[in-house]
Order: sequence, then C-alpha cells, then structure tokens
Amino acid sequence: MNWFGAAYYPEHWPRERWKKDVRTMGEIGINVVRIGEFSWSVVERKRGEIDFSVLDEAVDLLNSEGIKVIMGTPTCTPPPWLTKEFPEILQKDVNGLVIASGSRRHYCFNSKIYREETSRIVEAFADHFGNDPRIVAWQIDNEFGCHNSTVCFCENCAVAFRDWLKKKYGSIDKLNKAWGTVFWSQIFNDWEEIEPPRRTLTSPNPSLVLDYRRFSSDSAIDYHNLQREIIMRKSEAPITHNLMVNFTEIDYKKLSDSIDFVSWDNYIVGDYDPDLQALNHDLMRSLKKQPFLVMEQQPGRVNWRAVNPSYESSQLSFWVKQSFAHGAFGSLIFRFRQLPFGSEQFHTGLIDYDGEPTERAQAFSKAIEKLTDWSVVVPQREAAIYIDYENFWINDTDNLNNKFDLLIDGILPVYKSVRSLGYNVDFVFPGDSLEGYLLAFVPSSFKLERCFVEELRKFKGDIFFTALTDQKDGRNFIRKTEESFITELMGLRVVDAGGIETKVEISFADHVFNGSFVVEKILPSEDCEVLAVYLNGPFTNHPALIKRANMYYLSTVPEIVSFQTLLIEAGIERKASGPGRVIKGESNTILQNPFPHSITMEVGGKDYTLNEYEVRRVQTGLSKNNR
Amino acid sequence: MNWFGAAYYPEHWPRERWKKDVRTMGEIGINVVRIGEFSWSVVERKRGEIDFSVLDEAVDLLNSEGIKVIMGTPTCTPPPWLTKEFPEILQKDVNGLVIASGSRRHYCFNSKIYREETSRIVEAFADHFGNDPRIVAWQIDNEFGCHNSTVCFCENCAVAFRDWLKKKYGSIDKLNKAWGTVFWSQIFNDWEEIEPPRRTLTSPNPSLVLDYRRFSSDSAIDYHNLQREIIMRKSEAPITHNLMVNFTEIDYKKLSDSIDFVSWDNYIVGDYDPDLQALNHDLMRSLKKQPFLVMEQQPGRVNWRAVNPSYESSQLSFWVKQSFAHGAFGSLIFRFRQLPFGSEQFHTGLIDYDGEPTERAQAFSKAIEKLTDWSVVVPQREAAIYIDYENFWINDTDNLNNKFDLLIDGILPVYKSVRSLGYNVDFVFPGDSLEGYLLAFVPSSFKLERCFVEELRKFKGDIFFTALTDQKDGRNFIRKTEESFITELMGLRVVDAGGIETKVEISFADHVFNGSFVVEKILPSEDCEVLAVYLNGPFTNHPALIKRANMYYLSTVPEIVSFQTLLIEAGIERKASGPGRVIKGESNTILQNPFPHSITMEVGGKDYTLNEYEVRRVQTGLSKNNR
Amino acid sequence: MNWFGAAYYPEHWPRERWKKDVRTMGEIGINVVRIGEFSWSVVERKRGEIDFSVLDEAVDLLNSEGIKVIMGTPTCTPPPWLTKEFPEILQKDVNGLVIASGSRRHYCFNSKIYREETSRIVEAFADHFGNDPRIVAWQIDNEFGCHNSTVCFCENCAVAFRDWLKKKYGSIDKLNKAWGTVFWSQIFNDWEEIEPPRRTLTSPNPSLVLDYRRFSSDSAIDYHNLQREIIMRKSEAPITHNLMVNFTEIDYKKLSDSIDFVSWDNYIVGDYDPDLQALNHDLMRSLKKQPFLVMEQQPGRVNWRAVNPSYESSQLSFWVKQSFAHGAFGSLIFRFRQLPFGSEQFHTGLIDYDGEPTERAQAFSKAIEKLTDWSVVVPQREAAIYIDYENFWINDTDNLNNKFDLLIDGILPVYKSVRSLGYNVDFVFPGDSLEGYLLAFVPSSFKLERCFVEELRKFKGDIFFTALTDQKDGRNFIRKTEESFITELMGLRVVDAGGIETKVEISFADHVFNGSFVVEKILPSEDCEVLAVYLNGPFTNHPALIKRANMYYLSTVPEIVSFQTLLIEAGIERKASGPGRVIKGESNTILQNPFPHSITMEVGGKDYTLNEYEVRRVQTGLSKNNR
Repeated sequence: MNWFGAAYYPEHWPRERWKKDVRTMGEIGINVVRIGEFSWSVVERKRGEIDFSVLDEAVDLLNSEGIKVIMGTPTCTPPPWLTKEFPEILQKDVNGLVIASGSRRHYCFNSKIYREETSRIVEAFADHFGNDPRIVAWQIDNEFGCHNSTVCFCENCAVAFRDWLKKKYGSIDKLNKAWGTVFWSQIFNDWEEIEPPRRTLTSPNPSLVLDYRRFSSDSAIDYHNLQREIIMRKSEAPITHNLMVNFTEIDYKKLSDSIDFVSWDNYIVGDYDPDLQALNHDLMRSLKKQPFLVMEQQPGRVNWRAVNPSYESSQLSFWVKQSFAHGAFGSLIFRFRQLPFGSEQFHTGLIDYDGEPTERAQAFSKAIEKLTDWSVVVPQREAAIYIDYENFWINDTDNLNNKFDLLIDGILPVYKSVRSLGYNVDFVFPGDSLEGYLLAFVPSSFKLERCFVEELRKFKGDIFFTALTDQKDGRNFIRKTEESFITELMGLRVVDAGGIETKVEISFADHVFNGSFVVEKILPSEDCEVLAVYLNGPFTNHPALIKRANMYYLSTVPEIVSFQTLLIEAGIERKASGPGRVIKGESNTILQNPFPHSITMEVGGKDYTLNEYEVRRVQTGLSKNNR
Repeated sequence: MNWFGAAYYPEHWPRERWKKDVRTMGEIGINVVRIGEFSWSVVERKRGEIDFSVLDEAVDLLNSEGIKVIMGTPTCTPPPWLTKEFPEILQKDVNGLVIASGSRRHYCFNSKIYREETSRIVEAFADHFGNDPRIVAWQIDNEFGCHNSTVCFCENCAVAFRDWLKKKYGSIDKLNKAWGTVFWSQIFNDWEEIEPPRRTLTSPNPSLVLDYRRFSSDSAIDYHNLQREIIMRKSEAPITHNLMVNFTEIDYKKLSDSIDFVSWDNYIVGDYDPDLQALNHDLMRSLKKQPFLVMEQQPGRVNWRAVNPSYESSQLSFWVKQSFAHGAFGSLIFRFRQLPFGSEQFHTGLIDYDGEPTERAQAFSKAIEKLTDWSVVVPQREAAIYIDYENFWINDTDNLNNKFDLLIDGILPVYKSVRSLGYNVDFVFPGDSLEGYLLAFVPSSFKLERCFVEELRKFKGDIFFTALTDQKDGRNFIRKTEESFITELMGLRVVDAGGIETKVEISFADHVFNGSFVVEKILPSEDCEVLAVYLNGPFTNHPALIKRANMYYLSTVPEIVSFQTLLIEAGIERKASGPGRVIKGESNTILQNPFPHSITMEVGGKDYTLNEYEVRRVQTGLSKNNR
Repeated sequence: MNWFGAAYYPEHWPRERWKKDVRTMGEIGINVVRIGEFSWSVVERKRGEIDFSVLDEAVDLLNSEGIKVIMGTPTCTPPPWLTKEFPEILQKDVNGLVIASGSRRHYCFNSKIYREETSRIVEAFADHFGNDPRIVAWQIDNEFGCHNSTVCFCENCAVAFRDWLKKKYGSIDKLNKAWGTVFWSQIFNDWEEIEPPRRTLTSPNPSLVLDYRRFSSDSAIDYHNLQREIIMRKSEAPITHNLMVNFTEIDYKKLSDSIDFVSWDNYIVGDYDPDLQALNHDLMRSLKKQPFLVMEQQPGRVNWRAVNPSYESSQLSFWVKQSFAHGAFGSLIFRFRQLPFGSEQFHTGLIDYDGEPTERAQAFSKAIEKLTDWSVVVPQREAAIYIDYENFWINDTDNLNNKFDLLIDGILPVYKSVRSLGYNVDFVFPGDSLEGYLLAFVPSSFKLERCFVEELRKFKGDIFFTALTDQKDGRNFIRKTEESFITELMGLRVVDAGGIETKVEISFADHVFNGSFVVEKILPSEDCEVLAVYLNGPFTNHPALIKRANMYYLSTVPEIVSFQTLLIEAGIERKASGPGRVIKGESNTILQNPFPHSITMEVGGKDYTLNEYEVRRVQTGLSKNNR
C-alpha cells in the first residue's frame, strides 16, 4: 500500500477541531500522518510530568478513520525548562559564541546532559508507543543538520573529537603524520592540545578540518543511533529519519545504514529546477537501493526564503507524481494545515488558515487517486554517478576554486545531461557495484576509494571522469602520481591546474564547448587519444578531453549543454529527446512534463504529447535496458 | 516668533572666541541655539564635581545678543569615568557581545545603574537651569535609537522584559496562548525561562519578537520619561526630544505624548528625494497635530555616509523653506561651526574650519529674512495616510518578502503619488479621526486597529488599501477571515499570497501598471467591482484591483508611477500638475521647486513659474479644500 | 654575488630525500636558501627539549653543495603545547573575541608571556647559529601583520597602549587636547579609562584611532627589535624581515631602520598588473635606498585566493628579471617544492608534488643564468613620489569617500602615469631629500610633514599635488588655512570638498579628463594660474587644476589615462613611449616587456622590439638623467 499523508500537529488546534481535521484527511485520501516530532513541551510540560494524552487521543482519532501514524521523537526542540536548567547543552559557533534557544535544533549532539535527557524522553515514547500497531514507523528527531547545525565548536565537541581521534589514530604520532602537522609548527604532543577548527587568522590544517567534518557527521549519526537503539528494544516498527534536499554535511550513505527506510523532505530552495528535485529523489533511492518515502512534500509557498513565492496547485500534483516516478512509496504533505502563529506562519498547507481545504488539497487528493494503484517504480540500471559525501567536505576546505559547489556546479550538470538523453540515473557510493549499468560518471570526485576503482576497472561501459577527480587522498593530501588511481586507470598525469574566473573554450568534433571553475594541464600517456584541446585559457592547445579504451577524462568542469553535446559526440546513444523526462521501471515507463505547457517527447522511437505538468505511466514495450 | 538657530558647542572652542561666534549668530539672524547635549564630561569632569560655568557663560553671552537657549541633557554620552566604573551599563548585541564605549549612545535604557546616574545629572541640570527664563526649551538626550541602539540584548533587558511581560499578560498561560508557544515546543512554565530573542539557528517566535520590539520602544520612552519627570518638577519650559528621519524603531506616536512639541533632525540619508524629506516633515507634524521644530538641519555635506557628497548652499535655503512649508515653526542648523576634530570632523556647518562664515551662512541668513514674517503653516486636511509604528516591526519579522521596506517601498510611493496630484498629506495613527479628509490611504498596514476601522467605516471619501493590509493581528498572528476587518469592510477574502522577485503587470483602464514585492489572490464578494486583473505572475487573470462603494483594494504593492495613474483612472481629481509641489495652508498656498532649474506648475487652474529651488508663498484665492 | 634561491623546509620531507633536493637546487643554480621560519615545533617538540639536528643536517647538506642559508626565527607559529599552556597569548578581535590557534600569527605582540617565550627560542637559535659562517642572513619571524594580524584588541594591548600614550603625551591633559576628547564627552581623567577602539555603535575618536594604528605598528616593530637585539649580540650576519606586497598597516619606513637590508614577498594579489608589482619593488628599494632582496617570489599559482589561477612559467622568468631591473640583488622562490599537505597544499613550487622539477624550475634556472653577471641596478633619480605610512591609517578613519584606497586609487595611477612616460620612480618619505630629482609627486597625502614641505620649497622641478593633500595634521585634525602648507606653498585655499560616486569631467587643453572619489572647491590666490575647470559635479566651473610657479594642484583624484595626458599637456617631457617599461640604471638601461606578445617601444629616440616577457639590458648611451 502506498502511503499518502501529511504532517499533523494536534497540539496546535483545539481538541474539538480534531475530528473535523481527521475526517477531511479521510476525504482527501490520506492514510498515514506524522505526529509528535515537536511535541516535547506538550508531552512533558514540566520535568518528569509526562502526559501522552494529546498524542494518544490523536492516534485514536486517526485510527478511527483508518489512518496510520508515523511517530516522531521530539528531540529537535528541547523545551525552555530544559535549556534554562542546562544552558550548557547549547551549541557554540566557530567564534565560541553560544547559539541561543528559541527556535529549534538548539542542542549539541555531544552534550552528555542532552544525550541523557534524550534517552529519558525517547524511552518514554518507546515505552508508550512501542507496541502500538497503529504506529507504522518512527521518525527520529527532525532534519539533522538543518540551519547549519551539523558542526558545533563547543567544549563538549572538543572532548568528543579527541576521543574520536584516539579511536581513529591510536597514537598522536600517527595523527601528526596523517595530518601533516609538521607544516606551520602544528605538531601535537598530547590529545588535549587538539581543538576544533575555530576561527583562525588564515586557513587551518585541511586534514584536521576534514576529520572534524567526519567527526561532526558521525556525531549526528551516533546521536541518531542512541535513539534508534532505545526504540528498537521496544518497537518493531521501522525507524527512519527525514533527510534534506541538497544536503551534504552529514554522510547520508552512512546514516542510511541506521534507518530502515529512507525518507526525505522535498523542498525547492532556489529557482525551481525539476531536475534538481529529481536528482535528490534518485540520490535518496540510491542510498539504500530501496523505495523511499517523501516525508515532507512542500505543498506550495514555504516561509523560510528571503522571498517566498507562490506555486500553482497543479505543480504540487506534479511534484508528488515525480517522486513516485523516481521510486517513492509514499508522500506526506508538510503540513496538513496552515498555522497562523509561530515561526512557520507563512508556510502553506492543505487546509488554509480558516480551516478550509485549499486547491492544494484537491490537487493532492486527485494525485492520490491516480497513484493508489501504482506499484513502486524500480528504475532499471542505466547510468551510475559516483558520490562520496566526504568529497563535499574536501571541496569545502581550501581549493583551486573556492566558488565551486560540488553538488550544483559539479554533479548537477552531469546529471542533467545524462537525464536529458533519456537515461535513468542511480548514484553509487564507495562499496557499491557497477554491475548492470551502461554508463558510469565520476564528476569531480576529489577522492576515489580503492574499492570503487576496482569497480571501474571491471566496468565495460563508458566511463566519464571530470576534472579534480582523484586529486586528494583520504587524509586530504594531494595525491602523487605514483599513488594516482587515474594514472593507474588511464595513464594520464595531471601536471598542473588552476582556478579560472571565466569560461574556457574547448574544440571537439566541430563543436566549441565550455569549461569552467578549473582547468588542468594533463599529460596523456601514449595510448591515450586526445579528443579535444583548449582554445584559450592557461593551457591553450593542451588536451582537454582524452580517451583510453572505455574511459574519458575531461580536464575541466563541464556545463550542462557542453556535456550533453559532448556525450553525443562521444557516441552515447540518445534514448529520449524533447524537453520531458523519462524513467524506465521494471514493468512501466513513466513520462514526465515538468512544464506549465504541453510538450512532445520521443522515447524509444515513439512520440508522446504530454499536457502541462503531466506524469504518464505507459506500459509500452520498451525493451529492458534497450541493450 | 519663528525660531532660527543652530547647535552650538561652546566647550569645543576657546572662551575668547565665543563672543565673536555669538556676534556672527546675531548677524545671521539666529535667535535660538541648542547647547549642552554632549557636555557631561565638561559639566562633571569627575564624579560629583559639577561645574556649569561653561554653559552658564555661554547662556549669558547668547542672552547678551538676544539669543535664547534650548538646553540638552547630556545623557547620550556617558563620560569615560562612568563607563570605566560601571561597564555593566553598556549594551549587548544579539550575540551577547558588549558594545564598547568610545562613541555615543553606549548605554542600556534598562540599566538600573545608568538610570540612577541619569537622574543625578539631569537633576543637576534641572536644578541649575530650571528657573532660567533664557532656557526656552529642553531637549532630553539625543536621537534615541540612533546607530541601531534601540534594541539591546543584555541581562538588564532580559529582567526588564520579563517585568514588562508580567504586566502585559498577568499569567504565563496567557502569554503562552498569545505567543503560540505550543509551536516548536516553546511553552514556558516560568517567566525566568523567557529570554530576549538572541541569535538562534533559525527564526524565533514572531510574537515574542514583536513584543520585544514593543518592549524596546517602551524602554526608550520610559527612559525619556524618567528625565522628563525630573525636569517638569523644576522647569516650566517645554520639553522635546529630537526625532530622526525615516526612523521606525521607536513608536514616535507614543513618544510624542511625552514631549511638549515635536522636533526632528532633517538629514538626507541616501539619494536625495525631496518628497522623502517632505514625508518626514508631514509625519512629524502629524504626530502631535501641531507645528514642529527642525532641531537639526543638515547645512551641506555630512560625515557619516560611505561617500559624503557636497550640496549647493541654495539647497540649504530650499530645505529650510520646505520645512516651514510643511508646518515647522523653526529650524536650527546642525552645526554652527565645523569642528576640525572628533568623529564628526567632516560635517559641515555655517562657519568653516577657519572660523569664517560660509556660503551656507549667507544662504541661511537670507532664508531667515524671508521666513521671519511667515505665520506657521497649518495644511488643510486633504489626504490621510495611515501609519502604525508596530507595523514596521511586524514587517521586520519573517514575511512573504523579506526585502520589502514598509516605509520606503510601501508608504513612500503612495505618498509621492498623492503629493504629485497636489494634495496635502497628513499621517493618521490608531486613535485618530478621519474627519475633514477627502481621501484615505492604508498602505500595506499589516495590522489594523479596531478604532481605525471604525473611522474607515464612517469615512465618506475614497479609501485605498494596498496589499498586506490586515494580514496580522496584534499578536503577530495571521488573521482568519472571520476576524478580518478587510472582509468586514469590503467583503473580499485573501485566499493566497506570495512574494515576487520580479514585477507583475496589471491591466486597468487601457493602462498597464506594475506591482511588486507581493501579490495576493483575492476572492471578491459579489458586490465588489473588479477593476483590474493580473496579466502575469502567479495569479494571472485574478483580480488585482477591486472596488466596493468608496473603497479600493489593490492586491499588490504599487510603484509610484503606477499608483499615480491608477488614482487618476479611479477618478481622483488632480489638484496640481507639473514637477513642483504645493501645500495649501489655512491662509496661504506654498509652491515649491526642489530642482536646480526653473519649472512651471499649475495649481488651481493657474500657471506658476518658479526659479531653481524657489519656495513661494501665494495668497491666491485657492478655495478651502477645493470642495 | 647575486642571490638565487628558494624557501626550503627539510622538516617536511624524509631525511633520505634531502640529498636529492639539494642536488637539484645546485643544478638549478640556487646559491642560498631560507629555512627555519616555521620550525618551532620541530626544534622544540616539547618545552625545553631543544634539538637543532634537522636544521643542522640541512645546513650541512646545503653547504656541501655550496649553498648558503638565511635562517628564520620560528616565532610566527607558536606550537600547540605553547598555546595550550598559555592561551592568553592569543589575539583578540575588535569584538573582544579570541582568535584561535591552528593556523599562524596567532599571538599578540604585546603579550609579556609570548615575548618571554620569544626571547627564549630566539636566544637558542642565536646561540646555535650565531657564529655559523654558512648563515648569511637572519629573517626575523615571518610577514608581520599578514592576515590582518597587525591590530589586536586584547587586554595586553590595552595596557601597552596606555604606556605608549604616557610616553607620547606625558599628561592626560595633553592627550585630551591632542585627541579633541571634549567632543562627545570623551574627556579622560585617568590613563586607565582609555581602551583600544573596540566595536562602538558609531565612529570612535579619529585621533585615538590614528594613535592606535601607530601603536599597533610600533608594537610589531618593537617585537621585531626584541628579537633583533638578541640576534645582534650573537651574530654578525645581517638581519631582515620579509615585508609584504601592497601592505600598509606597519610603517615599513620605520621598520626598515631595524633591518640591515629590505626583503619582501612578491605576490600577485588580484588581477595582474606589472606596474603594481613594480611599484612595490620601487617602494622596497626606496625604504633604505639600497638594493633589496625578493625573499619570496611566487613561482606560479598560489593557494590563498578565492580563485587560484595558473601562470605560464615564462611569466616567472619575467617576474624575477623585473625585480632585478628595479634594484633587487636576489630572488628566492617560495617554495622549492610543492607540499601535498597543510594549508598551503595548493601553492606551486619549483619541484612538483612528485618531487620532479617543473617548467618553473627550468624557467628560474634560465633566468639565473642571465642574471648572474648583472651588477645591481641603481636607478637614476628622476621622479619622486611622496609616501607617509601614517596617511594610509588616516585614510582608514572616517573620510569624505570611504571607498577610496590610498595606495590603489590614489598612488598607483600617478605611479603608472609617470612610469608610462619613461621615468624612474623613487618613493620619498618624511625626512628624505628631493635633491637630484626632476619631478615630485604628492598624491593625496593627507598629512604633510614640515621637513618634507621644506624639501618641496627648495625643489626646482615640477611638483604635482592631488586632492586631499595636507587635509589633516598629525593629530588627525583637519587643518585650518592658517596652518596649511598648501596655502603656504601655493596660496590656494580649499574651502569645501565632497565625496563623489560618479566621475567628474575636467576641461584642460582641449582634452576632457576624469576625476573621481572626491572633488575640492579651491580658491586660488591671484598669482595662481587656473589651467582647468570642472565641467560638472558639485563644483562646476570652479578650478580643477591650478599652477603657481613650478607647482600644480589637482583638486580631485586622477585616473591613470587622465593624469598621463595631463602631465604631457603640462609640458612634462616624454622619455619613452610604447607599452613597455624602462629603468635607467647608472650604467645600464633595462627594457621590459611584461606582455605575452612582442612589443615595440621607443626610448631615448631609439626603437626597440622586445619578445614576449623579455627583459633586456642595454648599454646604449642614454645620457644621465637626459637633462
């Protein structure tokens, strides 16, 4: 059964209203709601006075309408009595300044006190709801890392970081070597001398910074697991956490080992790009290689942007269907009802401020109707794009071009190019196999893991590397040629490189392409074929694109149009054309038109006309993998 | 007698120079000077050693030339010995960081210690000058709130805020309800748990923030009243405080109840717009509905901008006359003499660094000559624009479009439009009557007070509302339709709304207008006339401008040209045309040319040609209110 | 013997590699290397355990190849054990926030503890290497003031500042007078009341700020001298410090009295402008009027820019030759070898990450070959440009145009104009003589010293003043006309002035020139000739350029093209033409082509064609000074 639902906060509304709300949910077609994740000060108004009656009544009422519940643990928002009692649980920023309570996420993952408080309240939730069959899943906390809360610089973190380092390195000498502390007289004698990378006059040690980012990500996951272990002892319901769009500060691949299914919050954070939302869907599906849940689906306007635009309700319909096309098994709208007070008062919902259903409710209801009988889409393996979360953190340390955003500037153009040619995309991570894929892409992957290099070596399809790949090792050191995987795989050597402020031009197969952000001067081995050279920039006439066997190396960062044409020129078969997008599942093909006007697209040699925002499931005989 | 004067600082100059300065003042035509407002460390060089000889001698000397004195209390600048002794009087910023002494305004309104020190020094001033008939007025402190000093986050403020809240809400439960603290687990059990809205990870509770802004404004006013009560006991001279241009952080309407006349400081803060200065004049006159004083008139270049431009002395002449045209009874130049040292060393004055009169002195002297016989202008009631200071603070909390500046983007375009059609403008505030006005404007007034709604209901002239009006209630909650005054007045309902980054187009009466910042989707009742619809944007084809009886609602934020044409198309009579501006007093009409070239304008069917920067008083038979 | 070398860090590499590195150095032609300046935690791994074996072995090995050593003292980077033990040595910023250890320069010049630690480690270095003939020079610390480290606001500095003030002023009354503390009630009774200019609500006292800048510069120099005195007692080798490009926070003229020769670090900090690098060379040579050393020559890409571009190795060759053309006696590349770890991992070197020589090594080697027989160039005296480091600090206090950068906007255009006409440039400082120069330039010199005014009075060549000159006195007070040197010299009086956002136009000799940043309204005396007037701006038709005898005053800030044409129109003889640059030494003339293409230039009536990046030494009969 597919899940259709919303986030609901019974505590925000008078008890006498709940019944009407639940009835409206039923009318819309909702079969699951999430509750509880900000309820701490309702459930425990004062220390020790735990009272679940609000949530109990809500669960009862929802159940009476046949609606199941995802129960959130309320640790995202410690109540005022708690922060008043223990201000030391608050985070500190890079300057050592306390971040105040009064919004949310105002706690440090490494605060012993907060971890005890967490255990206490989560234990209470698990005791109370652990055996309740109406609870179909748990959500632990809410959006770890939101509002730049992943990395904290408080003394709790300093202590925990030292422990983390002791475990990782064993001895201070190993750490000194792994960090290159001999540079700038940073050799440590004692673990106690190590501090978080607080505000320094100039760049701190990049190896320390990378480890601090790993530690910070691990701290979030460890905090998650503290809760997970409590819940698992009391409940058999699956456990999840709601991941975020475009978010790279926590290693979601690692976190996904500690959740039973992936769920995520589908929001538009800038100019709307349907491919960027799709990238996130594909990424979420790829984490556990399983269907995922959209835990929060933006219904229309949000409240947290500088300028908060409106959206048509027909777009909501598209967004929900798009998520199913990419492998979702459910979609919950955030939020059921617009709230006139509190920080999110300008966030839209299915029900308006007056308590009346909006056009969004109708649109969602209609989408549910269409999607009810959809079996979960499992996209066929076609193109694989490599992601290693640590590369985002490496990119955040000093770089050739500090304006380069790895996800948006490095990975998205490649993703868009591949999708525009009609290929399904999976993301693959260190440890994953490339078996079954037609194409592999390794975009600006600073660090390659040996295990993935082995996959690449075995892989028979075309492989595309872009600039910066294999530049660093796991210590955040620059790799020598003798240790270079790219040299090992392709024989080429990167002898120099530089950031560029303006685009460079590349001549290839009668086209002129653009590269941006960085250019590398590469020395191809003799068995490399030079396919393209630079027409300008610091390495004019030097190779820009080279090929050896099934491997291509582009020594700059491609733009979307450039890379798309380059793929075609390199002989990659176009599987679809037109502005729409296609996903090929095991039994169905889904065509999508993200635009507010009708389009025509060609897939598998056949033309389709789609209405505005239409998502169409076709069972045509698209041959498996088209191979 | 009209007041013409300047700010004078005898303490800055050798005693032997004073006589010459005072003689020059007389020659210029000055009859009043302000002194004393930064004199604390001169009057009380060391704790307890109070010596008024400098001010005494200055007052004597001024009197010998027939010049009266406005005496400033010196609390804006606590001396070094005081801040050294009591560093706890200093403000703290949103991060909890102390703001250092060493410039001015370096004290917290809620510091008990500083309030005691204030009482002590003000008592001394009042004792000394309270019965002096040469003191024609008192100025308390200087420019409350200048340099972002209104809102402080120190522990003194936290304590005072809690007291303020106790008085307002009585019980913590009422506060919880009024703030919607159930959202994000913010329910308070105890007043001590409440903190100022210091830096949080994301948006704090908007109701708390609004109350903190009210509290901060009240703190300034309360501090003012501490001084006022001391002076009132000893002196019969009127008491004022010098208000500021474009300043909205303190409720000036509320403060104006505690001053005997309004005075303000007329400075150009950005690109020069004569209408913006005029808006401030009209606002200042409207506060007490009485003639006002320009306490500080910029004579030319100031020192506090990033780039400090020069102005022609003929502009000074215009500025002074413009203030009289809008109802000033006096104008004091800041400052009499340019000071070669100190933070304001680049500020111009009437006398230059060498001690010689500048062209500005001549221009001011000539202006005085012209204005001496002017009776104070009391503009006839024509157009009323609604202002509620709390709306500026509501706009500062999270919003649909956080780039929207209520004064500059919301009110100024409406003011300019109305003025360009030849109407006088008064600002009206909650509690004010609309009697006698021809037109009423309610521009983006987030919150409407019931008392003003009653005025609107009784009003027979045309009323123009613009978007965002009545969106919020006094708690900073979004209003429901059932509580909506706009629905009550016009029958319409705002069903959706969004911020916009680019302008929308509106079709009305063969014109295309622009709206910006936000658009609303409105549902007019059946007896509403839809005058205009959107040509693009999120609510294309939905109503943009509707009318019911004498009320118009524009569901976006107008630009100056758009709104002006819209008024004409809506049938508003043009009372003047041409680039100049007109003010119709009870017995005179004043024509103004703010430009550096001559212009022709038509007023009441008659053409006038004005020279550059000319302000002309005409006693033509302009019929009262032209009705 | 000219010095050719590099910075080398034996501690970064395995001992077994050193021999190869040193051999490569020899092959390149290197005869001197700098070592030691970041070696503290290598030399003293734990407190008191001093071990020079790494440096000893390196010096031995270098010596075996005939390479001399510049020994750096390691105080730029106190080791972790030291900052852990004494966190109070760290700097505090304007907000009072501690700046963390973990990069470099993390200490306060005024920390007594750090000064003791400094003495201890420098004593050890001096004891160990003081008599070693292989040490040809000492470098004290590294780049004082780098990363905004000149000005600290900690309590150590507050105490030291008070002592500095006591010495300067003797009595608090003198200080009060010299700072104009009567303004804004800032009169001090006691030294203890004086604080560093921490973050205030608005501008602090400009005289206090200027003195704090002087104090901060003096603190750096005093800290330098602490080390210098220790070394001088033990060693006869000359002592230097490596100065920085475009750096104006420390009075390098004053510092140069405490170094035996000037050395500096030649980096490109923005868009490459060969004249800006040349300006720095000329400035460095002018400090001691002696040949200088390029202690760090950027070999190619650096690591510390937002976008770090690549450069061709032929440019390195030009840079090295350019420095010799301007009077360098040596050039050391920073760094010998690219380091894969640490904060500077993206900085290029002569040897790449793999340990192989780069094209840069070849280019440097070839440059050495050419330069080996060059005798040091001593440019003939032609044009003198006045610089007083205190003027940079005056410009940093509130100003008419706070966007004006004195070096880049005020001095560079004048320098470029003069150079483009073929003149050598020396910079002259307060106390310097103008004897022997043909032309003198005084660009936007806020403060003129009496001694230099005397030089100007005696000077027979043409003198060019630009706006803002002589605006202030040594107290940072605005000058009165009666004390004005410009009035004394030229009879003119500046009666008004203002910042400008857009350019003004000036009409002169059938040309239209541009001025920017500020314009002044000047009143020329009768014997002044008005050469040009403003065509627009606030002072239209007022004089822009006036002349009296051999003196010109331009009442705005010129742009490069404007000033160049203006000089020609004013009758200054063109000594060279074409895009290249020329330096006329006592026996040679050096022609330079900074461009990546060949050029033709005319010097002394003769045409020369230079290849891309060519620097050519010619011994043609260019007559001395061409007079």
